[in-house]
Amino acid sequence: MAPAAVPVSLPTASTATALTNAGIKRDLANVAVSHKPQLDASKLTYEFNKNPKVVAAVDDPVRRLQNSTTDHMITAKWTEANGWEHPKLTPYGPFQLEPTASCLHYATEAFEGMKAYRGVDGKLRLFRPDLNAKRMNLSSVRIALPSIPPEEMETLIKEFIAIDGPKWLPDPNTFIYLRPAVIGSGAALGVQRPREATVFIIAALFPPLDKPTGMRLLASTEDMGVRAWHGGHGASKVGANYGPTLQAQGAAGARGFDQVLWLLGPEGRVTEAGASNFFVVWKNKTTGATQLVTAPLGDRIILDGVTRRSVLELARKHLAIGSTEPRAGGEDLEKVEVVEENFTITDMIEAYDEGRLLEAFACGTAFFIAPVNGVQYKDKEIEVPMPMVMPDGSRAGRYGGTIKVWLKEIMYGVVDHPWGVVINERGPVLPK
Amino acid sequence: MAPAAVPVSLPTASTATALTNAGIKRDLANVAVSHKPQLDASKLTYEFNKNPKVVAAVDDPVRRLQNSTTDHMITAKWTEANGWEHPKLTPYGPFQLEPTASCLHYATEAFEGMKAYRGVDGKLRLFRPDLNAKRMNLSSVRIALPSIPPEEMETLIKEFIAIDGPKWLPDPNTFIYLRPAVIGSGAALGVQRPREATVFIIAALFPPLDKPTGMRLLASTEDMGVRAWHGGHGASKVGANYGPTLQAQGAAGARGFDQVLWLLGPEGRVTEAGASNFFVVWKNKTTGATQLVTAPLGDRIILDGVTRRSVLELARKHLAIGSTEPRAGGEDLEKVEVVEENFTITDMIEAYDEGRLLEAFACGTAFFIAPVNGVQYKDKEIEVPMPMVMPDGSRAGRYGGTIKVWLKEIMYGVVDHPWGVVINERGPVLPK
Repeated sequence: MAPAAVPVSLPTASTATALTNAGIKRDLANVAVSHKPQLDASKLTYEFNKNPKVVAAVDDPVRRLQNSTTDHMITAKWTEANGWEHPKLTPYGPFQLEPTASCLHYATEAFEGMKAYRGVDGKLRLFRPDLNAKRMNLSSVRIALPSIPPEEMETLIKEFIAIDGPKWLPDPNTFIYLRPAVIGSGAALGVQRPREATVFIIAALFPPLDKPTGMRLLASTEDMGVRAWHGGHGASKVGANYGPTLQAQGAAGARGFDQVLWLLGPEGRVTEAGASNFFVVWKNKTTGATQLVTAPLGDRIILDGVTRRSVLELARKHLAIGSTEPRAGGEDLEKVEVVEENFTITDMIEAYDEGRLLEAFACGTAFFIAPVNGVQYKDKEIEVPMPMVMPDGSRAGRYGGTIKVWLKEIMYGVVDHPWGVVINERGPVLPK
Repeated sequence: MAPAAVPVSLPTASTATALTNAGIKRDLANVAVSHKPQLDASKLTYEFNKNPKVVAAVDDPVRRLQNSTTDHMITAKWTEANGWEHPKLTPYGPFQLEPTASCLHYATEAFEGMKAYRGVDGKLRLFRPDLNAKRMNLSSVRIALPSIPPEEMETLIKEFIAIDGPKWLPDPNTFIYLRPAVIGSGAALGVQRPREATVFIIAALFPPLDKPTGMRLLASTEDMGVRAWHGGHGASKVGANYGPTLQAQGAAGARGFDQVLWLLGPEGRVTEAGASNFFVVWKNKTTGATQLVTAPLGDRIILDGVTRRSVLELARKHLAIGSTEPRAGGEDLEKVEVVEENFTITDMIEAYDEGRLLEAFACGTAFFIAPVNGVQYKDKEIEVPMPMVMPDGSRAGRYGGTIKVWLKEIMYGVVDHPWGVVINERGPVLPK
């Protein structure tokens, strides 16, 4: 009578094949159904906006609301019954959603954050869009929404910005924020896997988010909750990682802090800062070696950030002990050990008290590399040096600041680099 | 330069006053702003549906989709700037939401589940609606949405069902499912506290959810994740508690299980079953006393379920050792100790192996009291007795089954009880 004692693994993009091979079909209904139409970017249909909007100036206060969007959006609908419909580019406009829609009740939603950059060479670029597209697929599956083929998603994102980029990014050295997302859009109040989903891509005007004087963080205490935990979903960019942190973030903001530094467990393990990854540079307590340290990905507590990954890769290539490719701007920096390991707020306090804490920064797409000038934990205040003067006059730590300059050079086309993917933009014109 | 070292407590409905007294204003902006218009049920406006729908029969398969709604909905909008607008009763219909709406990205959403019952006496009842209204307020604040005055919410729920009840609940011994909810409905992609929210009340036709043969549960293993955790939001009815569980639930369903029994931590602490609370009845290992046991509320891991609370209260009144109010149906049952304490899957296995496990059931609004016939944990199968034959021929454990009968008597007006709140229904007619 009882079902066989089979081990249960959650279907992920990477385990989908293995599970199919094991004959477990039904739980892959929304992951590995190959006979139903797949998302196909080449089938995109076009309906251009006949009432285009006016582009707000870079310093227009309306940008602070972070809700001004561009002329268009791309949407693609999936149903369990019929697979993917053809994606559509249409004028940006509201969704009609049933009040019973899954995403309004059960947080069946995931998203990506990206920027498109207008380079100093006049070209339009995305930064490593392949990584966002891959992560979006993982996040969608984690929240019981369909698998989204990363190559198709990446193509749709490029096509979207090829059309809205020319008008909305007129000036060199500016960016626009892209938001690909997926929601459980079907009506059904049962607590169950959504049978309908909608992917969409929009773009919003953002204000400059730099804080020239650095960010001050409030390390979380028990009352403020935890952001992510073992067996949770901290490694996925699902909505459920964000809403539950906003109450604590609001409380920290009301006390003059820029973000919460999220700690985990009684030991106070340092995980993320706000919705960004977090790095410190310190002298190792035992060896005295200078280290660039961030929390590891292994236990799926923190997000595999695109900026985090890029910081680590650039540091390993140009700044790590033993690295053989020096890069302009990094010559005067002592070589470091690049370390992905857990550390605690106590480690940070100890390093600060012993004069070993050299810098700290948060990093993510929205806030980019954001230097930290201080962290408060209970009644202890950690002051963090920001000795570097950046090209724009703002302050930063020397390692974070140097890597920030390098990343900007890639994003804005000061240097040619495979991470800076040039878009063949054309505006609201049909493809040939 | 640094902000003062003040302890941070999250603003909750209960701490709001204390925090205000401490002069901490800004983080209470959406909790304790008394000078802005409050939600006022007496200001409800009415626009009745001119194209009313047809009521699907109780056995109509359309009910299985759990997405057929009634003729109307109530909505009420809140903004940080202007407080609450007057609530509106309108024809049920889709929401227009900006693709940038907070609830579509950051899971800023919370809800309640309730039923309205048509009694054997022809009257329409809600079951303890005050408890749902209070919990909705707590959940809304937890997810950084506004405080929702419970009395006003309860009045709106009653008014809603007073209007849609007569038509949509024609037959004695039937129920309809009510879904009050709140979403962050404003456009803004910044990861921040929503500045706009919409409360809504809808009702949906549900199929009978009873499983006459009992439910078989799959106890969660590490791969399947955890439902809730210390410092998380398991005690709130926020969307973020549900979406992240659907992947595991789908995998369990594909293996023939009805729900996941969610365990927590390396010790395998038993928390909830699917989206329901969970009870066992066993003989205590040490004392031999018969105990009705469920996980406690103290560490805010599990939901303070209305059914859970009612089971405990009825058990303490009529079935507990020392209780002095016997109730028909419970005379033959041995008196029990009613216990809210943590227990583990190992405790359950041990009790089963030693013949001490007497019964188990899940309980919640949607599935009511759902007897469990078995639990599988890894390769261990626990069979759970269901010795009682219920009035409808289904099977149950003796304690859960008896309490289920008592609760039904209250819900369907077989007995008069303060928990069964009679609604003065009138249909789509303006109030006098």
